[in-house]
Amino acid sequence: MAYRQQLLPMEKVFRDPVHDYIYIQHQVILDLINTSEFQRLRRIKQLGTTSLTFHGAEHSRFGHCLGVYEITRRICDNFERNYPTQAPGDGGWDDHERLVALCAALLHDIGHGPYSHTFEHIFHTDHEALTVQILTSPETEVNQVLQQVSPDFPAQVAAVIQKTYPNPQVVQMISSQIDADRMDYLLRDSYFTGTNYGNFDLTRILRVMKPYQGGITFAMEGMHAVEDYIVSRFQMYMQVYFHPVSRSMEVILDRLLERANDLYQSHAVDAEATPVMLLPFFNNDFTLHDYLRLDDGVLNTYFSHWRDSRDQILADLATRFLDRRPLKSARVDETTQPLIPALQKLIEQAGFDAHYYTDTNDSYDLPYDAYDPKMKKPRTQIELQQKDGSLLELSTVSDLVRAITGKVSGDQRFFFPKEMLSENAESDLFKPIYQEFQQYILNDRLVVPH
Amino acid sequence: MAYRQQLLPMEKVFRDPVHDYIYIQHQVILDLINTSEFQRLRRIKQLGTTSLTFHGAEHSRFGHCLGVYEITRRICDNFERNYPTQAPGDGGWDDHERLVALCAALLHDIGHGPYSHTFEHIFHTDHEALTVQILTSPETEVNQVLQQVSPDFPAQVAAVIQKTYPNPQVVQMISSQIDADRMDYLLRDSYFTGTNYGNFDLTRILRVMKPYQGGITFAMEGMHAVEDYIVSRFQMYMQVYFHPVSRSMEVILDRLLERANDLYQSHAVDAEATPVMLLPFFNNDFTLHDYLRLDDGVLNTYFSHWRDSRDQILADLATRFLDRRPLKSARVDETTQPLIPALQKLIEQAGFDAHYYTDTNDSYDLPYDAYDPKMKKPRTQIELQQKDGSLLELSTVSDLVRAITGKVSGDQRFFFPKEMLSENAESDLFKPIYQEFQQYILNDRLVVPH
Amino acid sequence: MAYRQQLLPMEKVFRDPVHDYIYIQHQVILDLINTSEFQRLRRIKQLGTTSLTFHGAEHSRFGHCLGVYEITRRICDNFERNYPTQAPGDGGWDDHERLVALCAALLHDIGHGPYSHTFEHIFHTDHEALTVQILTSPETEVNQVLQQVSPDFPAQVAAVIQKTYPNPQVVQMISSQIDADRMDYLLRDSYFTGTNYGNFDLTRILRVMKPYQGGITFAMEGMHAVEDYIVSRFQMYMQVYFHPVSRSMEVILDRLLERANDLYQSHAVDAEATPVMLLPFFNNDFTLHDYLRLDDGVLNTYFSHWRDSRDQILADLATRFLDRRPLKSARVDETTQPLIPALQKLIEQAGFDAHYYTDTNDSYDLPYDAYDPKMKKPRTQIELQQKDGSLLELSTVSDLVRAITGKVSGDQRFFFPKEMLSENAESDLFKPIYQEFQQYILNDRLVVPH
Amino acid sequence: MAYRQQLLPMEKVFRDPVHDYIYIQHQVILDLINTSEFQRLRRIKQLGTTSLTFHGAEHSRFGHCLGVYEITRRICDNFERNYPTQAPGDGGWDDHERLVALCAALLHDIGHGPYSHTFEHIFHTDHEALTVQILTSPETEVNQVLQQVSPDFPAQVAAVIQKTYPNPQVVQMISSQIDADRMDYLLRDSYFTGTNYGNFDLTRILRVMKPYQGGITFAMEGMHAVEDYIVSRFQMYMQVYFHPVSRSMEVILDRLLERANDLYQSHAVDAEATPVMLLPFFNNDFTLHDYLRLDDGVLNTYFSHWRDSRDQILADLATRFLDRRPLKSARVDETTQPLIPALQKLIEQAGFDAHYYTDTNDSYDLPYDAYDPKMKKPRTQIELQQKDGSLLELSTVSDLVRAITGKVSGDQRFFFPKEMLSENAESDLFKPIYQEFQQYILNDRLVVPH
Repeated sequence: MAYRQQLLPMEKVFRDPVHDYIYIQHQVILDLINTSEFQRLRRIKQLGTTSLTFHGAEHSRFGHCLGVYEITRRICDNFERNYPTQAPGDGGWDDHERLVALCAALLHDIGHGPYSHTFEHIFHTDHEALTVQILTSPETEVNQVLQQVSPDFPAQVAAVIQKTYPNPQVVQMISSQIDADRMDYLLRDSYFTGTNYGNFDLTRILRVMKPYQGGITFAMEGMHAVEDYIVSRFQMYMQVYFHPVSRSMEVILDRLLERANDLYQSHAVDAEATPVMLLPFFNNDFTLHDYLRLDDGVLNTYFSHWRDSRDQILADLATRFLDRRPLKSARVDETTQPLIPALQKLIEQAGFDAHYYTDTNDSYDLPYDAYDPKMKKPRTQIELQQKDGSLLELSTVSDLVRAITGKVSGDQRFFFPKEMLSENAESDLFKPIYQEFQQYILNDRLVVPH
Repeated sequence: MAYRQQLLPMEKVFRDPVHDYIYIQHQVILDLINTSEFQRLRRIKQLGTTSLTFHGAEHSRFGHCLGVYEITRRICDNFERNYPTQAPGDGGWDDHERLVALCAALLHDIGHGPYSHTFEHIFHTDHEALTVQILTSPETEVNQVLQQVSPDFPAQVAAVIQKTYPNPQVVQMISSQIDADRMDYLLRDSYFTGTNYGNFDLTRILRVMKPYQGGITFAMEGMHAVEDYIVSRFQMYMQVYFHPVSRSMEVILDRLLERANDLYQSHAVDAEATPVMLLPFFNNDFTLHDYLRLDDGVLNTYFSHWRDSRDQILADLATRFLDRRPLKSARVDETTQPLIPALQKLIEQAGFDAHYYTDTNDSYDLPYDAYDPKMKKPRTQIELQQKDGSLLELSTVSDLVRAITGKVSGDQRFFFPKEMLSENAESDLFKPIYQEFQQYILNDRLVVPH
Repeated sequence: MAYRQQLLPMEKVFRDPVHDYIYIQHQVILDLINTSEFQRLRRIKQLGTTSLTFHGAEHSRFGHCLGVYEITRRICDNFERNYPTQAPGDGGWDDHERLVALCAALLHDIGHGPYSHTFEHIFHTDHEALTVQILTSPETEVNQVLQQVSPDFPAQVAAVIQKTYPNPQVVQMISSQIDADRMDYLLRDSYFTGTNYGNFDLTRILRVMKPYQGGITFAMEGMHAVEDYIVSRFQMYMQVYFHPVSRSMEVILDRLLERANDLYQSHAVDAEATPVMLLPFFNNDFTLHDYLRLDDGVLNTYFSHWRDSRDQILADLATRFLDRRPLKSARVDETTQPLIPALQKLIEQAGFDAHYYTDTNDSYDLPYDAYDPKMKKPRTQIELQQKDGSLLELSTVSDLVRAITGKVSGDQRFFFPKEMLSENAESDLFKPIYQEFQQYILNDRLVVPH
Repeated sequence: MAYRQQLLPMEKVFRDPVHDYIYIQHQVILDLINTSEFQRLRRIKQLGTTSLTFHGAEHSRFGHCLGVYEITRRICDNFERNYPTQAPGDGGWDDHERLVALCAALLHDIGHGPYSHTFEHIFHTDHEALTVQILTSPETEVNQVLQQVSPDFPAQVAAVIQKTYPNPQVVQMISSQIDADRMDYLLRDSYFTGTNYGNFDLTRILRVMKPYQGGITFAMEGMHAVEDYIVSRFQMYMQVYFHPVSRSMEVILDRLLERANDLYQSHAVDAEATPVMLLPFFNNDFTLHDYLRLDDGVLNTYFSHWRDSRDQILADLATRFLDRRPLKSARVDETTQPLIPALQKLIEQAGFDAHYYTDTNDSYDLPYDAYDPKMKKPRTQIELQQKDGSLLELSTVSDLVRAITGKVSGDQRFFFPKEMLSENAESDLFKPIYQEFQQYILNDRLVVPH
């Protein structure tokens, strides 16, 4: 039988805390899971520094990718059973699209590296481009599996992830404002952090999802379930993803990698602690193989070496990161931003290099948006279908969603060493500096001292 | 105020998926959590290779240690409120013991290293001895915090963990057949694997727990809750901890470390891949500092280097471990053990070094035992207290517990390369060897071929 | 010891699916639970006709009342431990208020009867007035228990429920926009319906709750938890409490009781089916004893008799209610309301008495409101407390809450017999009438037929 | 299309707290749910007096019946997908059996009345015979629906429930030691009581279930999941179903009905309180229609009338039942049974009629049994299937199951009025009697006084 259609003689399952079981039916999917590149996702945490705030959130990208696959599989099952296409262009579901959808779901995050966001910032890598490269480069095991389906299959899977695939139903399953990716990570991050803000009624949403010519729509009677999902997403951002302590640990990580890079460029790094696997990135000349060797443990291993560096700043930042010594922070807005230089001056006076020990970091997200053709990246809006077939955009019928539509949420914060907030530093030389600094902060915000 | 009594102005909480919140009230406890040695536990998985079978079980020892602390805190609260001592020796609870109990609970696993069981097997380290060393050696941050309570406090905490502390109530809280440690890990491992075999009614067990002169007892009316806990523990061993796939990954890990050590001893290791942080262990001459630098990520980083080794076996085992390519296995018993050499011979014929690619591994546990003074390590039996104060040993009143009392459970398995089970290896040179091999296996057991 | 202070020798617990355990510590509370009036709450469903839509929601008011008690107990524990009063008027918590708070929590719903809303509508009873009567009338067991505390204690408990008690902290615990009552019913109704819309983080909300002079406030850092509660409440109303099918069953119930009353007033009721326990209500002359004999089962028993009535309408409505044959409905607004008489005419033509078989019913709720002195019943707004002690009203800091503040939500619906939507009634005499009727309905709304 | 094959245009769902959603696909099933006889199950509690111990357990038989249907549906889906029959007698699943299985699952409890166990004891009704009558008697709506499928269909459904249906796969789905009925009630009763003893891994059990010639078997690898189910079942019996307080309330109920019957037979019942709907049962001459009018609320309504009876015993027992005033109890065994007459004598001396106020009640269950042809009702044993197709009986491979196989569990208890345990009855006339009585009880058992 063609590899494409090859089903496992006996369905295989993975026990999953979020979906109970994940069902693997195609040989292709099982083979992809068993590739070196996919197994590597076990060594990359899904939420990076968030586990330093929510200690339960130590789960890796591996489980999330399986989860996105599973949700996609359930969507396909529903579409195949209830909305099969009868004629081309009728808006029904063509189940020949199932395999490309499942592969794209499984592999959508395959290009992620350790501490992605920060790593990309310092070393100018791009996980989306790397995903495409992993899918299409003949050196990877993933590509070798996909090739067996057909020579153009790797490119098709890549097209889905890049949103250039012709069938919008497939694209929107994997990537839209309410897709398998977002649905899995909300439930999963909720479960592992132990908060329940990210909970919503997955079964009901899957039930009201329907294909149509323009992609995917939701039956009107499911409006409140969709609304609940949007609100859950908003709350996870507010309460978990934007948590100031995790962001402060990311600031430390950013400065730590930057310092290492700066030292390397100025040939000042200790010989003993040469980070072999990072050199291609310091040299800005890396191969896919170099990239695929990295994971959280590799970076942490170098940090552990750097603890013993003769460079004080490198050693101190590495220690702060590994031993979880977060910076403190306060909210800033346009009015109070001009105060930052004065604060940085005080921080320098207290003995810190202000460049490596402070940051202004904004965490903003657009919880939901209706389609706006003038935007750089207009989002596919969420459409609800009435009984007579007509569509209504979500925010026109939900007060809650309208309240957060098109608004950026989150805050901007100024991060600084915890030492600046010392209170009982009786004998401390820097006491007057600390006291002056503290006058700038009230109710978690920067203020003009009076 | 004395450091010992210093309470946080505002109780601090950690969000925990198992206990909802973990409440920190003492400055001492918060300071211990913030030590370098304790934060390191974030980088050591609680269940080692089990996460390769149950992908959700990626949680670290950090959360478990907080959980054991939290259960101990709740036991102390209950004992203080309901059973305070009135006179020395009356069997009541003396709340002056609270701090030593909490510290011992929090730190009982502080000496664990990466993949403890296997690592100890190859390098002859001992996590219990290391725990004591971390508590009592002046070089650690943990010791420095404990010292502040009183000079003999580190030794007291160590005594609890070593079970030599005079008050049996404190010892049994942390270490007995139904202690805070076991109760937390059953619930936690259950949660993260996504199975529910480890669930039992923690609140009810805490309610029926009572101090007495001999340690800790349980009110008779709680018998079924205690029974349920014992059965849950048994089932977690059978279904999760003894899972053949995880054990096979542990076999690979064991052989991988052994091979590296063998190569090092014979000076055959590649220069490029010198595992700097492992050298003290290869040389059998390591300091506490050396030990504390290790974690899962450090070992995995070396494995990643070893993938590229010129030594075929080292490279292959490293790849099998990192890419999760488990061995297969079959049950063995006394009758069929004599068949193993013949099987190993076939495995050699198929091109594998039988030493590095097979193992016979038994997973046995004593789910519960009544006290038996003739045993090497007699266990503290579980006592139920009747209304008139008399005690009954658990297995005398529970049929279920009696069924598994004093019996070792688990199985013995022979592990071998998956290749030996190839079926459609039409063109394969080794086909006849595989076929002969397969005649030895029926219904997951070794059998005499007919 | 004074009865007021009498604690149970051993705390008593009730196993509860929502709060795990409910802890009873005072003899007074246990005695109240054991009164005839309180036990009667077991025979009155918490959600009336909602169980006909969500079949799991068959829970009674008994469990809810225990739950409100338990949340109140936990609030008191928190206030006593963390915010005890030091001097009169300092805004701290005076734990002498605990017992009155606990009793008011436990008894706040004691005056509820079967299918309260509808019953009150037809028979002009008032469950709030009846609650006060049960507390203060010497004939009840509840009053006899409360009297033992002190002669004025029944009146104090009643004052809390009537919001005239001097201490606003006690009043707001039991009755405000975020009180023990609402918190319990959201969690409980969520659990029993099997939806999760009503879930919110109770533990966190209890942690950030604080007493102050004006009543109860919430620490600023708990803003998102409070927001989540408001949104959950909104969603439970939208998805559960306002469900059109439950409302249609309430319409039938209303018409059924009305018809029975009409028949009684015109002496047309069958002798056999004399509803002995309802007569005082038909005669509009009932005692407290008469009221306390009623429960869901008593009413259903009469309905069962009425099934066999010679009065066609009474028999049919009773059957529709007992056998769950809901009416259908469509949304109405100001524009389409004038269409209703035409629809009723068609319904009459199809053989139904439009008075007994249709209704226009609006389900509106104010999910949250800031204080507005011009309102008839201004609500206590939710205040958040910043670190420096200043207060902020919730909707000024939450976009989501602001979106639903002061807005009435819900919809207005026109209910009618399902028969009017018949489609394949080929041989039916009324087919043309049905067809005409159906032209008035599109996408779940009344429309002008075209 | 034939009514038998008629599928709903759009699958209908019921939200269920245990199974999340229950999926209705056949018009027949929907029509059965909408019958008067099935809707009546909403008014009969699943666990009778157990809700007086576990207040959450107020759920009715309605939800349970839907749950049994849903589990059966999932079994059929699995069998149809993975084990379809290829040739008659090959042990595969013939999906033409689906509808009869689903109907039998849904209707297996349709003959239950209020407080079945006790009611049957007093009035000699038989819920199994009544179930068959409801299915086969042309006067019921249920029969009218089933008739539409085919004239012999009602009898077929009845045969499944009576275990005389020729296909053992269908019979064992609904009724065996591990069937849809038991699986649903364990999960459901666990959920509503709020205990978790009844939890087991339903998804996994459904996965390992397989049809074969002899009925249903389980794949060997699922052994521990099946074992866990048996143990859960055992624990639910021990901790929930056999709870002494619920049993004592059942004793009161039994005596209350018996007293009413005795009074009626001796023409001593008050005219005012004539229990119209019970008369046919007092007269031992009832029709199916009479039976179907009964429900929990009807009985409670009569109890409420009887509270005011001039007969002291009837009034007192009714009050004890409605106001939940349980009897006390102590364990009895063969040795101590001869003490009971002496105790009853003391109880008489304290003013109680020993016949109506005491009972000796045993709660025994056989948690699991292997097949024993010598038994009156030999049970279908649970078979595990090995890879080569051979079968092993469960207790031969599970220590835990063997421990409870063929053993009756539970206890025998003597119930008596709580007054007998009075302690501080200083001024009480009966104090010496109470004191003598109390010498017979130690550690919850009858003992010979010393």
